[in-house]
Amino acid sequence: MERIALFPGSFDPITRGHHEIINKGLGLFDKIVVGVGINAGKKTLFSVEDRLRIITELFEHEPRISVLPYQTLTVKFCKEIGANFILRGLRSGLDFEYEQSIAFANKELDESIETVFLLSSPSYSNISSTIVRDIIVNNGDYSKFVPKGFKI
Amino acid sequence: MERIALFPGSFDPITRGHHEIINKGLGLFDKIVVGVGINAGKKTLFSVEDRLRIITELFEHEPRISVLPYQTLTVKFCKEIGANFILRGLRSGLDFEYEQSIAFANKELDESIETVFLLSSPSYSNISSTIVRDIIVNNGDYSKFVPKGFKI
Amino acid sequence: MERIALFPGSFDPITRGHHEIINKGLGLFDKIVVGVGINAGKKTLFSVEDRLRIITELFEHEPRISVLPYQTLTVKFCKEIGANFILRGLRSGLDFEYEQSIAFANKELDESIETVFLLSSPSYSNISSTIVRDIIVNNGDYSKFVPKGFKI
Amino acid sequence: MERIALFPGSFDPITRGHHEIINKGLGLFDKIVVGVGINAGKKTLFSVEDRLRIITELFEHEPRISVLPYQTLTVKFCKEIGANFILRGLRSGLDFEYEQSIAFANKELDESIETVFLLSSPSYSNISSTIVRDIIVNNGDYSKFVPKGFKI
Amino acid sequence: MERIALFPGSFDPITRGHHEIINKGLGLFDKIVVGVGINAGKKTLFSVEDRLRIITELFEHEPRISVLPYQTLTVKFCKEIGANFILRGLRSGLDFEYEQSIAFANKELDESIETVFLLSSPSYSNISSTIVRDIIVNNGDYSKFVPKGFKI
Amino acid sequence: MERIALFPGSFDPITRGHHEIINKGLGLFDKIVVGVGINAGKKTLFSVEDRLRIITELFEHEPRISVLPYQTLTVKFCKEIGANFILRGLRSGLDFEYEQSIAFANKELDESIETVFLLSSPSYSNISSTIVRDIIVNNGDYSKFVPKGFKI
Repeated sequence: MERIALFPGSFDPITRGHHEIINKGLGLFDKIVVGVGINAGKKTLFSVEDRLRIITELFEHEPRISVLPYQTLTVKFCKEIGANFILRGLRSGLDFEYEQSIAFANKELDESIETVFLLSSPSYSNISSTIVRDIIVNNGDYSKFVPKGFKI
Repeated sequence: MERIALFPGSFDPITRGHHEIINKGLGLFDKIVVGVGINAGKKTLFSVEDRLRIITELFEHEPRISVLPYQTLTVKFCKEIGANFILRGLRSGLDFEYEQSIAFANKELDESIETVFLLSSPSYSNISSTIVRDIIVNNGDYSKFVPKGFKI
Repeated sequence: MERIALFPGSFDPITRGHHEIINKGLGLFDKIVVGVGINAGKKTLFSVEDRLRIITELFEHEPRISVLPYQTLTVKFCKEIGANFILRGLRSGLDFEYEQSIAFANKELDESIETVFLLSSPSYSNISSTIVRDIIVNNGDYSKFVPKGFKI
Repeated sequence: MERIALFPGSFDPITRGHHEIINKGLGLFDKIVVGVGINAGKKTLFSVEDRLRIITELFEHEPRISVLPYQTLTVKFCKEIGANFILRGLRSGLDFEYEQSIAFANKELDESIETVFLLSSPSYSNISSTIVRDIIVNNGDYSKFVPKGFKI
Repeated sequence: MERIALFPGSFDPITRGHHEIINKGLGLFDKIVVGVGINAGKKTLFSVEDRLRIITELFEHEPRISVLPYQTLTVKFCKEIGANFILRGLRSGLDFEYEQSIAFANKELDESIETVFLLSSPSYSNISSTIVRDIIVNNGDYSKFVPKGFKI
Repeated sequence: MERIALFPGSFDPITRGHHEIINKGLGLFDKIVVGVGINAGKKTLFSVEDRLRIITELFEHEPRISVLPYQTLTVKFCKEIGANFILRGLRSGLDFEYEQSIAFANKELDESIETVFLLSSPSYSNISSTIVRDIIVNNGDYSKFVPKGFKI
């Protein structure tokens, strides 16, 4: 059976940390779907179109990665795309407690889907989309925090 | 002296975790007042009326539990209803740090009121109102996360 | 039904923090048994006899408190003394995770016994028996860390 | 070389905890600039003018402290005012993880600026501007949570 | 390329939590080696022989799992057995910080080996070998904490 | 007044993380005393003599750093050497809670001494003496974890 993982997130915008987890995930899964969550009630800095385009451009050389938007429960989207795993990166103990709640809720909703965690490396473990947005809004140099090849 | 506890919260909506803590609290307190906090500045999924009705229906068989709205400092509301204890559930280390701040502030404001903590059982320890709202908004099956008898 | 709580610990030695939790517990429970755990494999600074004597002297004016040694599973000792609650103090998020594991294990072993948590006040929340022992061994002034009336 | 530290924050409003950290910082730094961050997108209870005035009044006797507004990246503001250090207070493990992310991001943006942490004392370690605002909004007595001499 | 994972531990003794992680791991990896670490300086309740025997018996029906002792750096053992992944279970935020340190050190020592984390389910997330040993030593009923089929 | 800091520890052995904190501290303090704690009851891998020699060699070019053994309460040693600050590095939330307890106890014992915290950089934030000892004992390559110039 193919091992297919969903890597869900807002990606507003994708960071160097996200990029690393996706690349590490390729060693573990046959296919990875980067799922860009659409939340009508939440204001984002980047439009859905831009978020999808940026990620698609970054991985266009890698046929095992696809990029899709979704606007439903994460476990339902897994079913639609045939994913049996959810891939998540962990940066800190704080991250962990949050991720644990989400993962347990997903397990309650669909027992067949397992969440798999990989670690961000130390130098990326303090990068978040929030910090990147803050630097962008204040006209700072965000290039160290986003993947090489990232184009707004 | 009667031991009366306030169990304060937004209850937007009440979860299986809240329900368990209230029931456990009945072994420790003579009376429990479930206090539904009204915060004019905060948007909720359920109206105050619905939040009060749902909780009242769940505990209508239990004369030692009453359900009341409040819109003031928690310690002031304790005084009004004669409560000498605040009851809170703990799910995780994250919860704890947040609860500790609130409890210390309440103690500064009124030294006579003590906060008492009980643990959610493991299977409920990852349920939050936030997760329940997310499932409801996405048309998922939230029945495992709310108390039996819960009616929207 | 009487509400009887066990307050278990090594008490090597009892600290100002322990003392506070026991006193706060008197508002919640009808009787409190301070259970001094005996662990043959663990080296202590104070002998069991000294630990028992020091605590007994501190609470000799309070008939609702008794002090007993025990050398069995905590839930078994609860049964022997008729306690339906275990009382524990919480100082930090670190404490919490440790206490949560123990409380869940106790619940698995005996579902009828509930663990109740009270908070140490801020000024006592960084006192531990380990720190007191360290001060004693280095001939420092430990008087601020132990209850008034504490006699070695 | 002079040791100049920026103490950045929203100060909505300044608390007894902030006040303590600034005073402790005077033992470590030659000058401290209290930087009141202006965030157009964030609603505050106190206006920028009031926040600046309150802090300025509190420290008007201390020539080594100045109070300035800023609306740019924190490390850029450090450069403008000649600060080579950022001073931050730590209250809890939760605080720490948040502060660590910010400090690492600042280090990436400007390697020459070091973040220095001091501890809030236990009795102030649970005070936050959020709690103070909540008490003010609910007409509670906030005097124990703000510095002596604080005038709205 | 085959995906082979090492699941390292002391297993003094194996718990229901370990058992669950190994079983979940079978969905992700082609082979799993349960590596029983031998630490001459550490006193254990169960002998190496007993620890190996108990685990081998539990998984004798599953050809994709093997059980081996080891007494070297974990990453060196990975090389010896051809494992490119280390599998670990996570139970709490406390666990996480500890595991993160170990995983980063392993990565420094051998960049080709990735640590993969799966979650213990809530009902197993408070079980540890320490608690099991404590129950055994005190003649308690440990059956709920160890895998079905566990034989001392 | 001179700003003198004690940097206390076991240094069994000194790591790249310790080395970084001491160097960062030179920007903040006029003098730093590296205090090697001697604890008769604790078995170490390196002798006191070796621990002192290794650190002394590493900093022999820096006249503002001195290296001394001590076997008393940390605050008493501060008094002896004229230090008004204790310098500590922070790596994680776990570290923080431990350090906070020690710092508060020291403050109780001597109010005139302030503990100052600096952050380990991300790439060093998972290095501990425990991990270095484990690598040494297992004949691994520990060179990435100790300062350049470190000689056993």
